Amino acid sequence: MSTVDQKLDDALQTIKDEIPADISVSDVTYEGPELVVYTREPKKFAQQGDLVRQLASKLRKRITVRPDPDVLAPPAKAREQIRSVIPEDAGVTDLDFHADTGEVVIEAQKPGMVIGRRGSTLREITQKVGWTPEVVRTPPIESPTVSNVRSFLKQERDDRRDILERVGRQIHREQLSEEQWVRISTLGCCREVGRAAFVLSTADTRILIDCGDKPGSDDVPYLQVPEALGSGANSIDAVVLTHAHLDHSALLPLLFKYGYDGPIYTTEPTRDLMGLLQLDYLDVAAKEGRTPPYASEMVRETIKHTIPIEYGDVTDIAPDVKLTMHNAGHILGSAVSHFHIGNGMYNVAFSGDIHYDETRLLNGAVNDFPRVETLVLESTYGGRNDYQTDQSDSEQKLIETISEAYDRGGKIVIPAFAVGRSQEIMLVLEEAMRTGKIPEMPIHLDGMIWEATAIHTTYPEYLNDDVRDRIFHDDQNPFLADYFNHIDGGEDERQRVADDEQCIILSTSGMVTGGPIMSWLEHLGPDPDNTMIFVGYQAQGTMGRRIQSGRDEIPMNDSRGRSNRLKLNLDVETVDGFSGHADRQGLENFVKTMNPRPEKVLCVHGDERSVQDLSSALYHNYNMRTFAPKNLETFRFK
Amino acid sequence: MSTVDQKLDDALQTIKDEIPADISVSDVTYEGPELVVYTREPKKFAQQGDLVRQLASKLRKRITVRPDPDVLAPPAKAREQIRSVIPEDAGVTDLDFHADTGEVVIEAQKPGMVIGRRGSTLREITQKVGWTPEVVRTPPIESPTVSNVRSFLKQERDDRRDILERVGRQIHREQLSEEQWVRISTLGCCREVGRAAFVLSTADTRILIDCGDKPGSDDVPYLQVPEALGSGANSIDAVVLTHAHLDHSALLPLLFKYGYDGPIYTTEPTRDLMGLLQLDYLDVAAKEGRTPPYASEMVRETIKHTIPIEYGDVTDIAPDVKLTMHNAGHILGSAVSHFHIGNGMYNVAFSGDIHYDETRLLNGAVNDFPRVETLVLESTYGGRNDYQTDQSDSEQKLIETISEAYDRGGKIVIPAFAVGRSQEIMLVLEEAMRTGKIPEMPIHLDGMIWEATAIHTTYPEYLNDDVRDRIFHDDQNPFLADYFNHIDGGEDERQRVADDEQCIILSTSGMVTGGPIMSWLEHLGPDPDNTMIFVGYQAQGTMGRRIQSGRDEIPMNDSRGRSNRLKLNLDVETVDGFSGHADRQGLENFVKTMNPRPEKVLCVHGDERSVQDLSSALYHNYNMRTFAPKNLETFRFK
Repeated sequence: MSTVDQKLDDALQTIKDEIPADISVSDVTYEGPELVVYTREPKKFAQQGDLVRQLASKLRKRITVRPDPDVLAPPAKAREQIRSVIPEDAGVTDLDFHADTGEVVIEAQKPGMVIGRRGSTLREITQKVGWTPEVVRTPPIESPTVSNVRSFLKQERDDRRDILERVGRQIHREQLSEEQWVRISTLGCCREVGRAAFVLSTADTRILIDCGDKPGSDDVPYLQVPEALGSGANSIDAVVLTHAHLDHSALLPLLFKYGYDGPIYTTEPTRDLMGLLQLDYLDVAAKEGRTPPYASEMVRETIKHTIPIEYGDVTDIAPDVKLTMHNAGHILGSAVSHFHIGNGMYNVAFSGDIHYDETRLLNGAVNDFPRVETLVLESTYGGRNDYQTDQSDSEQKLIETISEAYDRGGKIVIPAFAVGRSQEIMLVLEEAMRTGKIPEMPIHLDGMIWEATAIHTTYPEYLNDDVRDRIFHDDQNPFLADYFNHIDGGEDERQRVADDEQCIILSTSGMVTGGPIMSWLEHLGPDPDNTMIFVGYQAQGTMGRRIQSGRDEIPMNDSRGRSNRLKLNLDVETVDGFSGHADRQGLENFVKTMNPRPEKVLCVHGDERSVQDLSSALYHNYNMRTFAPKNLETFRFK
Repeated sequence: MSTVDQKLDDALQTIKDEIPADISVSDVTYEGPELVVYTREPKKFAQQGDLVRQLASKLRKRITVRPDPDVLAPPAKAREQIRSVIPEDAGVTDLDFHADTGEVVIEAQKPGMVIGRRGSTLREITQKVGWTPEVVRTPPIESPTVSNVRSFLKQERDDRRDILERVGRQIHREQLSEEQWVRISTLGCCREVGRAAFVLSTADTRILIDCGDKPGSDDVPYLQVPEALGSGANSIDAVVLTHAHLDHSALLPLLFKYGYDGPIYTTEPTRDLMGLLQLDYLDVAAKEGRTPPYASEMVRETIKHTIPIEYGDVTDIAPDVKLTMHNAGHILGSAVSHFHIGNGMYNVAFSGDIHYDETRLLNGAVNDFPRVETLVLESTYGGRNDYQTDQSDSEQKLIETISEAYDRGGKIVIPAFAVGRSQEIMLVLEEAMRTGKIPEMPIHLDGMIWEATAIHTTYPEYLNDDVRDRIFHDDQNPFLADYFNHIDGGEDERQRVADDEQCIILSTSGMVTGGPIMSWLEHLGPDPDNTMIFVGYQAQGTMGRRIQSGRDEIPMNDSRGRSNRLKLNLDVETVDGFSGHADRQGLENFVKTMNPRPEKVLCVHGDERSVQDLSSALYHNYNMRTFAPKNLETFRFK
């Protein structure tokens, strides 16, 4: 008998010992990190309020109970009964029955009301119909990304179950090696920003953490070296993605092109944002006439292989590795990823990109762990002078700048990144208008911003506590405010907006390197009454940087595609302090207040100067062993 | 056309341009790192004294000229003609004709006389008979190892030529990567002594340096990790062996068991000593009832795949790597191995084990290189107090100790390692007796010492200049002195020696862990007139250490296999200073006088304290970047 089957047998025995004699367990199996328990008495199972929790704690596993197919109420009847149990206010928009697993997916506007207090409503459903309910939120703003991902996963349900079963057996395989060691190999984003990629390896397991591209460069992660995929695409056991930005996620689909067939662990919002950004990455490549390294089919493979995990859930991802993700404060779904290795032998945390202080959009990064010996820390603003303006000062300056611009009678255009910074600015503007700090006027959202916002509204539990409370308890979702308008009518609508009343326009791309912002420049650039406000970092060599530096004439293809020069007369302003990254102080604070303080810190994800400065400061101020690794090095910790 | 064939075509064209029109070149091919040139006019080729040298310099290749088979004098006739050309004094012992390659292997007691001044006699041979002569030395002391290796290689000639051709094409393959980097991965002997193994890798090439065991431990090199053989046995392009000791060579045959099929570069004496020691390693394992990790067949594979290179010869071993070996002063054939990477992009030297000062047996380690940025340095005696007695003081003490022991009327037994230390002591004793510093008496050599000495006498050009001069010019080979007697009559002879006149016995094992020394203890141990002199390091836990520390009763199986206790009454003395390793001062001197001084030093091959002490001292005293790596780390240098 294989180790996995032995483990399942043991689990089955434990379950039988724990549950009342009148509940039968027909089978147990692994699906990914979860243990699935099949029973002929799903209703009785559901009656025992804490039974699942009890089993989970006893077995130290996430547990899903499923009914045997033949004990289920027929879907037509079950649908009626379920509707009768769930309060009307929950706003159920869809019920989807899957007879193969006895699951019913309930899409509702208010999932909390479907779940009930400590899951009571869910249990009531099972008691009535036998089916196992799974709840997802109906996006308050319609999101093609979310609905595409959901319908794709529904369509690929069988395939996905095969994947999960395979992964489940992989995770619970026998630990072969007697050796105990922990290593990190650097495949990218060392002494540079971009192409984030690391391999965390033990004698039994190898985990790839992130697999990004390097914007504006041909540099790809060193996937060809033996310690990455050089010893075969499936020499990696699992992939962990810290967040959706392309410098961390762009090349994940490439793994599947190379034949990788294993799991990707990340949060649910990161999965959706990643899909959005990867497809956009392919679009942009196509528009710029570059051949992208993979086709959209591979993005779908990536999504199909993604196993979403929630903040704080301890998840087995290998026989000797448990993963826990925690809020990183950087963008929606971003995660500090904590690895508990070899039953407590060693603990490593990868910060991913972090924002230490809370922002309007997100809570501050978590830095509290049961144990952690080594921290891999981003250093984007790790340089000795990389201090940012306080958030409240920045907001104040933004409000003043907008007020002055408004008083001049013109329109205001803000180039912004679709994911993260746009939503932060939206929250600032919504409050400022609501509280009368700036005049009420339409805020037009152009480019991918609307869609990214829709994804944010699908996952309110990942947002800042205040925003979440407003959404859950006060039913005042700021993203649904009337000020916001989605530019979905193309050039015609832009022309109308340009001809119409005073307004604010948030548009991609954030560095004015393409996208609808170019059109807004054409419409609004010539009029000196208008204002452009930069709220994000403008990289060297981008059009945004040039405009910011005072360039007042830019090349432009007009609407008929003719090359032309555009005179910029609009006012150009910059408001700092809205970065998604911790500044130098934030990075130091993250480490200083970290509980427990790690013994070693690897400073990565920053230019040469930033990583050296931060590494040296942490060493001198906190007496830790610090390193500024190069790409392609391997560090051993144990 | 493949890159290799293109390169051969280019070489052929260059050769045709360089040589006189009346010499035809019928083909060129690679055999290992050499370029083999076939001609129908071997005699004319040989007439042009410097032609081969000229071509070698032009093509930057080692060149061998071979005649087309049908232009050769028949062996019977050639034999006569060759004999007539070579002076009688050369002592030719064998002529071996290989019609397939047109080579004739001449075994002679004095190879120098077969070669002639700057190769004049060799050229004369070719001019007369067309055959290409290759000269090897007749071992002055008959050596089963040397003759077995030679006859095995002769028998495997066809296979070996296939291997060489395949390796030749590998070496001259196209360089695929545009990336330029240099890395060293540590697979053993970091913060420990034993299981030496490193991988030197570039974007194109991966080279394994050493593959030893760790005596007294089950720890093997980390061959299973991806950066070693984890990505397939043939993911390594080449192996380089620094010297024959088992902690560097024991597991090379394992590579072939795992399916490795590539070359091993080392010196010729290292090849022979390695074969001797590996077979002994299997013997000892069998005697101790352990299952060895490979069979003797794999030792033969190892020898078959060995490509010997001489000190100072720059040898292409990959498209982007040139290897040069230099005397390391540690044991016969030991080599500091210098890697010239990427056409000058980077240079790394691996010290292997070194002795910086000359000893009687060997010249001091070479530390003079065209360029070297990183040095990987052994640190066996790198600790802050690891200073050894001066060699002359040690010799003086040994002589005094022997004199006193002699005066007491007893016999003297010296446990010694077969390879290296025994020959050093032999040279000291031979001189002391010859010059009257100690009385003349028989020196009996027991265990593998005689055979190891025979191998030394086969390669006098690898010995200390003085010894070499005595052998070549004065015909006074100290190893052939009448004092020395080979114990080859087993227990009977030992009994006779024990009953006979006063004498000195040199016997293995060096740490009294087994071998004939056990028998000598039985014979000589009870008599208080006898003396045991330790001249080498006695590791913790060995019988040698226990005796050295004063233990006077030891367990012993008597000749009938019964367990017994043996009372030791003989005098026990220790004379330090005969180590094959540089002491702390020697290591510092090696680095201090190194030309050029490297930028970085990796201190390896020493216990935790030794590597830390040495690393810190080199950093402080010479302002270099120094490291004390752990096993399983990867350092990037470029």
